[in-house]
Amino acid sequence: MSRPNQNKRMEQNIPVYEKLAGVLGGMIESSSLRAGDRMPSVRHFSLQQRVSVPTALRAYVTLETRGLIEARPKSGFYVRARQADLTPEPVKNTAQPKITALRNEDPAAALFADLTNSKLVPFGAALPSAALLPGIKLTRTMAAIGRRLGANSIGYDASPGSEALRRELARRSLDWGCALQADDFMITIGGTEALSLALRSVCKPGDTVIVESPTYFGLTSILRELKLKALAVPVDSADGIDLEMLEKTLRKNRVSACVIIPNVHNPIGFVMPEERKRRLVEICSARGVTLIEDDTYADLQYDGPRPRCLKAFDDSVILCGSYSKKLAPGYRIGYVAGGKWQGRILALKQASTLNGPLLPALAVAEFLKNGGYDRYLRSVRQQYRDQVSQMREAIAESFPKGVRLSRPKGGYLLWCELPREADALKLFKQAREAGISIAPGPLFSPTGDFGNFVRINCGHPWSPTIERAIGVLGHLVKKQCGH
Amino acid sequence: MSRPNQNKRMEQNIPVYEKLAGVLGGMIESSSLRAGDRMPSVRHFSLQQRVSVPTALRAYVTLETRGLIEARPKSGFYVRARQADLTPEPVKNTAQPKITALRNEDPAAALFADLTNSKLVPFGAALPSAALLPGIKLTRTMAAIGRRLGANSIGYDASPGSEALRRELARRSLDWGCALQADDFMITIGGTEALSLALRSVCKPGDTVIVESPTYFGLTSILRELKLKALAVPVDSADGIDLEMLEKTLRKNRVSACVIIPNVHNPIGFVMPEERKRRLVEICSARGVTLIEDDTYADLQYDGPRPRCLKAFDDSVILCGSYSKKLAPGYRIGYVAGGKWQGRILALKQASTLNGPLLPALAVAEFLKNGGYDRYLRSVRQQYRDQVSQMREAIAESFPKGVRLSRPKGGYLLWCELPREADALKLFKQAREAGISIAPGPLFSPTGDFGNFVRINCGHPWSPTIERAIGVLGHLVKKQCGH
Repeated sequence: MSRPNQNKRMEQNIPVYEKLAGVLGGMIESSSLRAGDRMPSVRHFSLQQRVSVPTALRAYVTLETRGLIEARPKSGFYVRARQADLTPEPVKNTAQPKITALRNEDPAAALFADLTNSKLVPFGAALPSAALLPGIKLTRTMAAIGRRLGANSIGYDASPGSEALRRELARRSLDWGCALQADDFMITIGGTEALSLALRSVCKPGDTVIVESPTYFGLTSILRELKLKALAVPVDSADGIDLEMLEKTLRKNRVSACVIIPNVHNPIGFVMPEERKRRLVEICSARGVTLIEDDTYADLQYDGPRPRCLKAFDDSVILCGSYSKKLAPGYRIGYVAGGKWQGRILALKQASTLNGPLLPALAVAEFLKNGGYDRYLRSVRQQYRDQVSQMREAIAESFPKGVRLSRPKGGYLLWCELPREADALKLFKQAREAGISIAPGPLFSPTGDFGNFVRINCGHPWSPTIERAIGVLGHLVKKQCGH
Repeated sequence: MSRPNQNKRMEQNIPVYEKLAGVLGGMIESSSLRAGDRMPSVRHFSLQQRVSVPTALRAYVTLETRGLIEARPKSGFYVRARQADLTPEPVKNTAQPKITALRNEDPAAALFADLTNSKLVPFGAALPSAALLPGIKLTRTMAAIGRRLGANSIGYDASPGSEALRRELARRSLDWGCALQADDFMITIGGTEALSLALRSVCKPGDTVIVESPTYFGLTSILRELKLKALAVPVDSADGIDLEMLEKTLRKNRVSACVIIPNVHNPIGFVMPEERKRRLVEICSARGVTLIEDDTYADLQYDGPRPRCLKAFDDSVILCGSYSKKLAPGYRIGYVAGGKWQGRILALKQASTLNGPLLPALAVAEFLKNGGYDRYLRSVRQQYRDQVSQMREAIAESFPKGVRLSRPKGGYLLWCELPREADALKLFKQAREAGISIAPGPLFSPTGDFGNFVRINCGHPWSPTIERAIGVLGHLVKKQCGH
């Protein structure tokens, strides 16, 4: 009910030219305006939109800065011909889903250190630049709360965790299409603990869990350590998990849970269309399979109202979220709303970490409450869109023909399919020697598929270092492919 | 090697009179000086100890304040007759150890909320008063670090966690009789995560784990959620686990791990004598049983050098520790040094909480490094000793004859055996209605033993409220016993 109002309130602070640029940018991204098309004149556009000429011009200049249009002398603005636009999306993995018992040894373990090695150009880990996160403000907020609490600043934040934070989450859940109460949430140590507890509450060792192919590689580690088997179902780059394949798979296999990243998928960046979300929930519900939803990146969708959660369609979905990837990695603030599983999840939390840290939870609560988070989101969404757009263009220009790129709907991750001859694990090693970290495709599959895929983190502002590094990567890939 | 020097350095800041009071207090506690004994004259004592008369007098006044001696007009100081001195220690649980599969439903779960209910007189949870903890200093330290780090203050503290903190732990490990390196440690979310990961790394569901009887009740919750069976071996109030019984039990049962609290035991407060620690390590080693050591309260021993860890005798012991119970509950800083198990423990951590919060870890590291922690320990140890002493005396006076009390060697917990007719779970309910929380004995046993025991938290400075509450408890116990 309060959703339209809230969105309206949030949008009031965006400058008009920025809104206009967003509308036009969306038209270009969706190919309603194509490369080479002449843009309406600034004057015409200002009349059409009932804004001043300077405002209309500012919108155009904004688009120009983003590399979407270019000014031709005495002729006006034109949609830029971009290599990236000609680059298709990755093709769907067509491997038949099969149950995979994960090996004891994590083949990716050796790669983790390099993913976050700060000496390498940071295309590996899914982490934005600290310069883009509101670290100074947030930590100042935490210090102020600490001063106010004084001696009590070191007290326990007994589970389910800070009520102030859970109240903010409940308020926001309206934007997610849910209407959760503070008591429906439990605060966790990042999204990892949320997912781990959710799976432990629903499954027992040896059970089979459906995941997306590709999926977030941390999930594979969790399944491995919980002795769960994985069953990876292909996803489409635009629509998400293949529902027909899912139904077929569920008919043939006994499955305990299904873990889905419906909004701003990691690594692909799609947002599942609402109708497909509804259908997914129905399929799982009909088969008695518990849906676990990883909502980590949803707030980072570039356009439109905040996408709905799967939980909006069925309260028995276990909703897992986190502020690590979009606000403060080192604060370790995640949450889980487990519906009927919440009691089990709470008991597991008591016996695995007991409580979470108090001050980081209170700082995030305050930042959500005082509007700091919303202000930050508004600026950073566009920033990420620009960074992804520049990365797409640079890759399209530097990599060999045949490369395919995802078209993320939000966030700062890019899923990149290299030509068949390329070997992502080999590329990982070669790139590291050249001072660059990347996330090789096989990490994103419990069966080690995606041998010719890489995920590129676009979380850092464009820079000569990044530009050079993409050139080097392109050169390495070309060499692998015999160019 | 550097151990004697370190202790010397630490002791240099203790005033002379305080040291003298400590020596005399120790003699009284150990009954070298008994109730009614006349103390040496202040003048005599000053000559004997080669200190000034005012210093000697100040030592006596300190002992008087602690209720250990009393001044009789024109006659001098006498050792006070104290009820508590006449009160014996709890008898050892003589139940034969038997393997216990823990019930799915945690019988204690319903009690947890009341244990930490801040509206009740706080004898329940093992938590000191916030007024005694250096919360303001520590949180100020964290704020300063946050300012210094600026935008980077929200960065990940990738596992194994803050190197600054691990270096401090390594330095301190010399005091524990170990010589661990920073790389031997991993930072955890409090002691709970340390214990949980240690057990997960060593055991698989269905395995049997030896625990002490009584033991820390959080451990029982961890065993339950990991589907491990418990085998509780009785402990002696002075010496710790019954080694003969342990050997017999190990001969008859297949056991994967043995969890021991050797130093300042929870709930009893004993410190295992070195010779018994050595023997325990040998027994477990000979049987191939992994020892897991919970070292949470060891720094809080009242007298003498810091007690050695079991790990000092065998590096394959998994050492678990925490600063929650002695420094900052809500910072959630624990650690584990798992020896040959460390690789497994790290992998499990990756898949359960990934990383810990950065700033709390850095704040604790700084506090350890700059001497703040050692200064705080020196003052608080004596404070806890006094509080426990006053609590012992008050219980001895208010409770019915037949009550038995532990004689803690450190910390702020008291284990109290009530007359046989008393029912601790009933007392828990009656006390709650009277506005008092206590921890009933059956919580401390996987088999629900200790039906007539309670653990009393003495972590708060003596006050009329506490005095009244002990009176009320005494009255309730007397009524239960038909007095």
